[in-house]
Amino acid sequence: MNEQAMLHVPESKYCFAENAKTIVLRLRTAKEDAPDEINVVYGGKYDIQHEQQRASMKLARSDRLYSYYESKLELKDVRFVYVFEVKEDGKTSFYSEDGLSGTYDFTLAYYNSFQYPYINKIDVHEMVPWMRKAVFYQIFVDRFNRGDKFKDDSYINMEWGEIPNPKSFAGGDIKGITEKIGYLSSLGVNVIYLTPLFKSISNHKYDISDYFSIDPHFGSNGDFRELVDKAHGAGIRVVMDAVFNHCSDRLYQFKDVLEKGQDSKYFDWFIINGSRPDPKLVNYECFGGCSYMPKFNTSNPEVKDYLLNVALHWIKEYDIDGWRLDVSDEVSHDFWRSFRSAVKSAKPSCVIIGENWHDANPCLNGDQFDGIMNYAFTKACLDFFSTETLDAEGFSDKLNSLLMRNTNQVNAMMLNLLDSHDTHRFLTMVEGDEEKLASALAVLFMFQGAPCVYYGTEIAMLGGYDPDSRRTLDWEKASVNNPISTLIQDLAKLKERPEIQTDNISITHEDGLLQIERRDSGKALRLTLNNSSKPAKHNASGQPLAKLNYEDGELGKLGFVVESFAIKPSVQIKVVQVESMSSL
Amino acid sequence: MNEQAMLHVPESKYCFAENAKTIVLRLRTAKEDAPDEINVVYGGKYDIQHEQQRASMKLARSDRLYSYYESKLELKDVRFVYVFEVKEDGKTSFYSEDGLSGTYDFTLAYYNSFQYPYINKIDVHEMVPWMRKAVFYQIFVDRFNRGDKFKDDSYINMEWGEIPNPKSFAGGDIKGITEKIGYLSSLGVNVIYLTPLFKSISNHKYDISDYFSIDPHFGSNGDFRELVDKAHGAGIRVVMDAVFNHCSDRLYQFKDVLEKGQDSKYFDWFIINGSRPDPKLVNYECFGGCSYMPKFNTSNPEVKDYLLNVALHWIKEYDIDGWRLDVSDEVSHDFWRSFRSAVKSAKPSCVIIGENWHDANPCLNGDQFDGIMNYAFTKACLDFFSTETLDAEGFSDKLNSLLMRNTNQVNAMMLNLLDSHDTHRFLTMVEGDEEKLASALAVLFMFQGAPCVYYGTEIAMLGGYDPDSRRTLDWEKASVNNPISTLIQDLAKLKERPEIQTDNISITHEDGLLQIERRDSGKALRLTLNNSSKPAKHNASGQPLAKLNYEDGELGKLGFVVESFAIKPSVQIKVVQVESMSSL
Repeated sequence: MNEQAMLHVPESKYCFAENAKTIVLRLRTAKEDAPDEINVVYGGKYDIQHEQQRASMKLARSDRLYSYYESKLELKDVRFVYVFEVKEDGKTSFYSEDGLSGTYDFTLAYYNSFQYPYINKIDVHEMVPWMRKAVFYQIFVDRFNRGDKFKDDSYINMEWGEIPNPKSFAGGDIKGITEKIGYLSSLGVNVIYLTPLFKSISNHKYDISDYFSIDPHFGSNGDFRELVDKAHGAGIRVVMDAVFNHCSDRLYQFKDVLEKGQDSKYFDWFIINGSRPDPKLVNYECFGGCSYMPKFNTSNPEVKDYLLNVALHWIKEYDIDGWRLDVSDEVSHDFWRSFRSAVKSAKPSCVIIGENWHDANPCLNGDQFDGIMNYAFTKACLDFFSTETLDAEGFSDKLNSLLMRNTNQVNAMMLNLLDSHDTHRFLTMVEGDEEKLASALAVLFMFQGAPCVYYGTEIAMLGGYDPDSRRTLDWEKASVNNPISTLIQDLAKLKERPEIQTDNISITHEDGLLQIERRDSGKALRLTLNNSSKPAKHNASGQPLAKLNYEDGELGKLGFVVESFAIKPSVQIKVVQVESMSSL
Repeated sequence: MNEQAMLHVPESKYCFAENAKTIVLRLRTAKEDAPDEINVVYGGKYDIQHEQQRASMKLARSDRLYSYYESKLELKDVRFVYVFEVKEDGKTSFYSEDGLSGTYDFTLAYYNSFQYPYINKIDVHEMVPWMRKAVFYQIFVDRFNRGDKFKDDSYINMEWGEIPNPKSFAGGDIKGITEKIGYLSSLGVNVIYLTPLFKSISNHKYDISDYFSIDPHFGSNGDFRELVDKAHGAGIRVVMDAVFNHCSDRLYQFKDVLEKGQDSKYFDWFIINGSRPDPKLVNYECFGGCSYMPKFNTSNPEVKDYLLNVALHWIKEYDIDGWRLDVSDEVSHDFWRSFRSAVKSAKPSCVIIGENWHDANPCLNGDQFDGIMNYAFTKACLDFFSTETLDAEGFSDKLNSLLMRNTNQVNAMMLNLLDSHDTHRFLTMVEGDEEKLASALAVLFMFQGAPCVYYGTEIAMLGGYDPDSRRTLDWEKASVNNPISTLIQDLAKLKERPEIQTDNISITHEDGLLQIERRDSGKALRLTLNNSSKPAKHNASGQPLAKLNYEDGELGKLGFVVESFAIKPSVQIKVVQVESMSSL
């Protein structure tokens, strides 16, 4: 064994409770290590010296560098104490807090075993059950659809269909979304995530001057109520954008500080160097150095109360189903813990999705977020489909590696995305190649977590970086099905199947083909995808596919197939098949 | 580079803030890897693509398997983004969230660099400054000293000096401690940690029936006030034992549930399977399966409030200086977060020490405990001095490894101990060998963190496992100095030196000798210890000691020396020297 590569950390993604009695264990080893057997040897904290149980650890996954062995245990005694037993070439070793050793003295286990000392239910990360079948659709509100024909539209400064600039207002609004609930339903969407709606002078509205009012450009609070009601009526949940890191310099409280300096009762709501904020000096903390977006001092209990009230107001009064947290990585963990506690008390099924572009494990232990916008997944898709710096093996390794960043619950509540208002559109990154977009969408929907489709993807919209990724939706194009929208509908239907709603996901590669398989106890669903420039057999005889008794088949360049089969006997049915994108 | 052995985790012990502007970085590599150069390449989150800074990572420490490189940075921009640059044999590699690569594209850093996205002061683990010079003394109250000669002593069932059994009451009390404040001061003690004092029928009082009253065996609340006042007057702080995992079945609230079952308003204060707790069936959660110690349901807000009030009461009304948390590992993180927040708001300098026998990193990120009882240190000392399964190299590796479990702040707030009321006495574990005890004490005081001396150690008390480790203190012996008490006095004086109050500690081995060196900018203090069975030169020419221009010296079997020297020029003065224990 390569001991230096081994890793196990109690009370982490390597050892976590799924519920009050169930523990999942992971042990990382070097990829090249394949011991004959790995067991977890465990017992109750006060009994293990007398009595040990054994369970086998199975190879669950591997990535570029490591293999990951897993076991899921149903416990009687939730004071869980354990070491790993590794058998190799007739030799047994034990892996404990002290590392690998040839013997292990269980009478001294209280000093150096691993332990999960007690499963306290309040610390367990509870799943938001609906996230297992969620299909998100992200709407940049000003550019999606204008519904209100009678509003004061003097603020609109571009024609629908024109290419926007950073200061463009196109007129999209809440009525425009409500009007398209049927459209979204047909597409298979069951959650909409809306960029900010509250009062703000910008088109993106990430600089908020009133957290309790819908911006007049977008409509009224009543319009929003109608949207939520209609959406809920159609089985569509609504997630709002929580911009709690910073506000607009037009927020009442900041204006008061601008005017009165230290004499303002809101002085400590912000983080100011000096006795008065000076937008020219930018002598206060703000978002990304922008003086018009002062950062909140969320350590101030008054600010905390204010923002938690905002969060609760829109849940309690409007029944929203989730918050996406803007720039969540720059706000304190302390604040997000209070946020989670307040939100989950008000509505346990309300999902909390952070905007963290990096590994956000410190926020994902059940005390802060449920998941994050999975930009590491975005990057992996770009590396595979756009820059092609990853081949099928590298992409498979990377996706497996991403799954090992977090617990099962978090993986199932990740918001996976190919693009957003903060990136280039994926289609632009693959130079308009719709075959690649289609393939990437298949991966997006088959991966563990909730797929999020950026508005316009369904009509193959192009767009570079902000503001170009925020073009207006062409409703003429959208009024008829096209191969991409049909594909999204087909893929969305997959999310209704039980086999895709489990934590059982295997990602492998075979002869240059990528395979993602999802399983429940009886059935499996498998994506086989060819991202290479030449056609490929997808069931080479004697390989894993053949074991499942596939008929011969061939995948064209950039083709893919999603097949469903009963695990015993293995009978497969093609669910979605794009043999080559010429069929699009 | 052995990439599989490399480890870096943002916002963890591998990357933590010491204050609002200072970040400490650690990068783990395989021990055998010694690249020519490792740098951290960093910048502001919104600037790094344009401008990168570089700082060198220095080899700080190594253990059995790994080397640890460190850098401490003073930041201007607290939105800190970074990767590591590794130079080896003329080749440069970069280590990011995506692992090791030959090139790194800083324009895409937002996808896969490491980051500490923003230092929010409220998340920074603040030091309790006095912990840097703390010398703890743990008192098992019933066995330390009887002060009140006039109390109702009908409960006392053993003679002072007899060997106790599990049900023995010897009569030790609070007045008995107060009376010995002068004694403790002379010994060099500046913090006393007292096992529980509250109302309870047992001698150990870990089964509490009233959290607001001192047990009558031990005295009155007034006696406790007098103790704290006198202790504070002598510069001695007082740490109490918080038994919040469980209580006695005689606690009013549990008795009410026993009587009324589900009709009791305290039913949800405990975790009961069924409609009524039945001590015979033990159908409720309790400590270690003991029906007379029911576990609190600390997820119930009423219970939380009750226990937090207890914590605050003894701080606010009696001005205690810390809480040691009994069985803290079985109580929820959620509870301890609230506990920390309440305690630190009331008295920021109040220290919080968990009773976690294992690596307690999940509790030590600044949101729960300051430190823990360092039983992993105890085990390492036993392995070195008692079972001798570790030699000087193994012991040095182990101590270095323990330091890498946590941040600098946590290391400085660890409660290091050789023994306690829950273990055999260390002297018994080394078969009464006082030379070994003396050597272990030298390590205890020189290691990073606060040394804790278990009462009676100073008179070389023996004792096996509970109840034998809880014998009465022999005041006749204690009334005169002996080599061990003199040594403790000398070692305690070391804690007043600035060089031992920093985070700068180096632990090495040399020709079978263990060396622990503590430094500030100008001075150093070094322990050189021979745990072997034969005398050893401690400054073999050409070795590190020689570099510091030592005079020749020889350490007898089990001898040690603590020397102080100015770093430039290197002039050393012997501070504590036990050349061989025959000098004891």
